[in-house]
Amino acid sequence: MPASILNLLNDDHAYVSGQEISTRLDITRAAVWKKITVLRRRGFVIEAAPSKGYRLISAPDLAADYLLPRVRSALWKTILVHDVVASTNDLAMSLAAEEGIGHGTVIVADRQTRGKGRLGRRWESPGGKNIYMSLIIRPELSPPDLTMLTVLAAVAGARAIQNTGDIPAKIKWPNDLMIDDKKLGGILTEVRSDPDRISLAVIGIGINVNMRSADFPGGLRSIATSMRSAAGHAIARNALIIQLLREFEHWYGILTTEGKRLLLHAWRKHSATLGRRVSVTVGNEKISGIAEDINDNGMLRLKMHSGQYRNISAGDITFLR
Amino acid sequence: MPASILNLLNDDHAYVSGQEISTRLDITRAAVWKKITVLRRRGFVIEAAPSKGYRLISAPDLAADYLLPRVRSALWKTILVHDVVASTNDLAMSLAAEEGIGHGTVIVADRQTRGKGRLGRRWESPGGKNIYMSLIIRPELSPPDLTMLTVLAAVAGARAIQNTGDIPAKIKWPNDLMIDDKKLGGILTEVRSDPDRISLAVIGIGINVNMRSADFPGGLRSIATSMRSAAGHAIARNALIIQLLREFEHWYGILTTEGKRLLLHAWRKHSATLGRRVSVTVGNEKISGIAEDINDNGMLRLKMHSGQYRNISAGDITFLR
Repeated sequence: MPASILNLLNDDHAYVSGQEISTRLDITRAAVWKKITVLRRRGFVIEAAPSKGYRLISAPDLAADYLLPRVRSALWKTILVHDVVASTNDLAMSLAAEEGIGHGTVIVADRQTRGKGRLGRRWESPGGKNIYMSLIIRPELSPPDLTMLTVLAAVAGARAIQNTGDIPAKIKWPNDLMIDDKKLGGILTEVRSDPDRISLAVIGIGINVNMRSADFPGGLRSIATSMRSAAGHAIARNALIIQLLREFEHWYGILTTEGKRLLLHAWRKHSATLGRRVSVTVGNEKISGIAEDINDNGMLRLKMHSGQYRNISAGDITFLR
Repeated sequence: MPASILNLLNDDHAYVSGQEISTRLDITRAAVWKKITVLRRRGFVIEAAPSKGYRLISAPDLAADYLLPRVRSALWKTILVHDVVASTNDLAMSLAAEEGIGHGTVIVADRQTRGKGRLGRRWESPGGKNIYMSLIIRPELSPPDLTMLTVLAAVAGARAIQNTGDIPAKIKWPNDLMIDDKKLGGILTEVRSDPDRISLAVIGIGINVNMRSADFPGGLRSIATSMRSAAGHAIARNALIIQLLREFEHWYGILTTEGKRLLLHAWRKHSATLGRRVSVTVGNEKISGIAEDINDNGMLRLKMHSGQYRNISAGDITFLR
């Protein structure tokens, strides 16, 4: 990526002189001014003070060239932002298959017309409010590790929500982010796999950020919520995305170098599920018991009333009182 | 699909009168003649005899409108034929993700520029000689059933080769089609899956049909062969594709209605692997023993020298003498 003014302007609101920008980017002062003007037109608030220089006050929502230098790392190399897509996961799968788009690409959309949850369920995806993103990685994992990627994304999501909005988000197995037993977000991990290996993983993350109660369809109002409702104020989507990508990278590094233990430990700490009486629907079957733990494959370890244990790889949980 | 002359002309070389075609398609006799001319230009050999009508002598290779009426069924609804693609599996994944192309679509290519085998290995894919196809299905299967799709395709492939070329093809676990311990074809099953289910399966099948020994790169000449080499004469690709799709549908029906038992039975009958001393490379590990059976998940059941058994989900087999 070529250096840009957005790499130089810091988020701590410090001034950077026009001379320094001119020198670092090797362009004239007039060209610096022109670039500042273009950024302002795009919604960046940049203050210019004589003799001090420029400082960045705020960035518009979901600007890839703002986000990338702030998360850029060994893992994240590309961020693609779209106004509207059918589904970020579908787009990710398609781009990865056809154009070989690779490890470390992030697709963000402001709105989805066919947002998806588990089992093909609809995920409400209005524009201007929430985040819908898909992380593309080509992990060195075998097919049974699929569920660990959801565990990883859930931990990263819960911590990013905590860091950004000071909201004690919890994880409901297998793939929900919760606050006070209401759904705040969800994860849909999809892989392209052959019997030997997972060749591609697309981790879809949807978080209700600034939706208000009235924005939810009636049927969801009592079971879903948003960061804004929980925090009592609007949340910057950029900040949440940056936190999420940093947390994901952190835990991905831990998973791939240290193994699963620390990750599972973090998951347990954020779990809304463990220790509770639950009913799990798996296909046509309904099983109830105590959610005792998750195992090394991310499966829920359920202690049934008979005293026997059962490991469940995917299903819908209802909390029992 | 609208009725076409190719639906009416039979493969048994029987005459169909111009009047009948005109009536069945509701077009004039002149329009019938025009359509026949267009088909002849595309390479169809159609004989016209006064007072008898038309009969189809032969079809050009890989003509979708010839193939489809001959396999059209509850399962196969669309056949897309391409001159050249990077990889039929990649194209299938991309089309399925982006455009929702669905259950029962077949992609055939005359040539691949980036044909793939297991573990990202190259699959030799020159034009005008072989078949490279990907079958798209959206099966009602859970992730552990992934390997059964390779089992299914291998059985369909072996039987189609037998039916078309009278060649006693065998299956080498996990995904090769063999004759006399030389590789005749291969299967690369890829799925798009989340922890709940396989949402999409793409079954790639490559068969060396009319390649001659000299067409193979030097390194492959001693280990690969073709139907033509085995049969001693050229093989019609159309006929092989039709057989393959019919066999696949037959066994898919059995798998989804009767379960795995009959399919596994057919696999065992065609196996080149069972009962033999083998060495299996799984990642960095090498295990040897007797290939005793495959289990209900398509895993190889290996009896090791210690007398213990081990189930292996994927790996490279070498036959030991």
